[in-house]
Amino acid sequence: MFIATSTSNGLAARLAKEFDDKVVRVESKIFPDNELYIRIPEFKDDYAVVVSSLYHPQNDHFLELLFTIEALKGLNINKIIVVVPYLAYARQDKRFLTGEPVSIKVILSSIENIGASAFITVDVHKEKSLSEWLTIPYDNVIPVEEVAEYFRNIRNIKVLAPDKGALWRARLIAEKLGSKYDYLEKVRDRVTGEVKIRPKHLEFENSNILIVDDIISTGGTMALAASCALENNAERVFAYGTHALLVKGALDRLYASGITDVVSTDTVLSPISKISIYRSLKKSLERFI
Amino acid sequence: MFIATSTSNGLAARLAKEFDDKVVRVESKIFPDNELYIRIPEFKDDYAVVVSSLYHPQNDHFLELLFTIEALKGLNINKIIVVVPYLAYARQDKRFLTGEPVSIKVILSSIENIGASAFITVDVHKEKSLSEWLTIPYDNVIPVEEVAEYFRNIRNIKVLAPDKGALWRARLIAEKLGSKYDYLEKVRDRVTGEVKIRPKHLEFENSNILIVDDIISTGGTMALAASCALENNAERVFAYGTHALLVKGALDRLYASGITDVVSTDTVLSPISKISIYRSLKKSLERFI
Repeated sequence: MFIATSTSNGLAARLAKEFDDKVVRVESKIFPDNELYIRIPEFKDDYAVVVSSLYHPQNDHFLELLFTIEALKGLNINKIIVVVPYLAYARQDKRFLTGEPVSIKVILSSIENIGASAFITVDVHKEKSLSEWLTIPYDNVIPVEEVAEYFRNIRNIKVLAPDKGALWRARLIAEKLGSKYDYLEKVRDRVTGEVKIRPKHLEFENSNILIVDDIISTGGTMALAASCALENNAERVFAYGTHALLVKGALDRLYASGITDVVSTDTVLSPISKISIYRSLKKSLERFI
Repeated sequence: MFIATSTSNGLAARLAKEFDDKVVRVESKIFPDNELYIRIPEFKDDYAVVVSSLYHPQNDHFLELLFTIEALKGLNINKIIVVVPYLAYARQDKRFLTGEPVSIKVILSSIENIGASAFITVDVHKEKSLSEWLTIPYDNVIPVEEVAEYFRNIRNIKVLAPDKGALWRARLIAEKLGSKYDYLEKVRDRVTGEVKIRPKHLEFENSNILIVDDIISTGGTMALAASCALENNAERVFAYGTHALLVKGALDRLYASGITDVVSTDTVLSPISKISIYRSLKKSLERFI
């Protein structure tokens, strides 16, 4: 049985269809004192796949997920596969300063403690967080196929990571597209002291550049990368980010930078969620069901 | 060291003073994508007492508490005493219908899982929830002394529970006041079939009635009890509820029912939080520090 929470974004139903299975929706309401109430329609099955994406309001969605897992335990479902397309708090993955929490540990450890048997997420900020804070089986899905397919018809494409840390993702997509890839490096001008970014290896002339990153938050990083690509004579610039958080006018910032099209997946509900990750999720789920 | 979260309501500082100890405030901010960030100023101590009341927005305050406990673990504090004056989700303490979660299990189990060493709460809806879902030492504080002291000067006082389930609380306060106590029972009129409430044992004439309950939510239960007391010729009616949630015009509903004064504690921040529970909390903490 597939379980759709309020942030399943259609993925629970799409996956249920792929597995020739059924989907139930978590009923929910808010009590007058603002406490969340949820209930799962009764069913009998060996396993349940819960799909719950933890975007804003992330704390409310987190409680909805924990309550849903607990309710499944109450229905005597022993195999509970938790799919969290967008994992909140993944960037607070260590103590940058003394006295900080490792927030992602709290999220992952709580999900496992309440009763998850397996955990699947998509393009998590640091994959190491999963191995560090989960003891149950897990998978980190990168929707390489879907992204490559979406941009397949653009000629002379080169894939660009906004920094070296994101290069591995650019490489995966470039390999699927059969194209070149690169990243932007920071360089300090020896005379003025000014810090600039520039492509590490490639020339952009007569090329269409596809910038790829994990999260589009304010869009600042991508907008800078796009400006750099255009200054280096790229013909057109496209942008892909797996998770479209889109805070504080991100889309206007991105299009103002000269990007032709900015695209994201359905891990977060947004007007640019043009790529569905359900087929990559399906492949991952086959290992767990 | 005492740790004040955003919902300590002054209790962390008051308790620190009682124990001749210090208090630090949890720093917090909200990131642009609405994720919560917290940080605890560095300190060295054998133990920490975190005071965090889980009223609305309860899900956000719950995450703040979990992050605070995790941050204390990161500061190598091994004895973490968690004080939750108002415990959210305590009324969802069983599966009333199939497919529901035991929400209070999720709350308590998560707090223990992240690292609490002991747990103190105030006048929890069902004390059994604590023994059922915690394996760490715990206490349920009933501020009997403080409530009795507040109403000590009212003559001819009788303490009234709005139903039989709340009678034990009325008895505790009545014994401290040296007064009589009673509860309201439901009776069906044999002729009209109408259900009415009436005092089980006592006469109310020439008496001042003190209604006591755990939670003041919409105030409906208390307003009904007050009307009943006045119909039974009570002189004046006072009302006490430990936790003043005060949803949907509760105070106007209560005063409209004829109540002279309605009073609550500082477990929840409200304009009727006239009684502080810090002395009862102090007594409880002495067993844990």
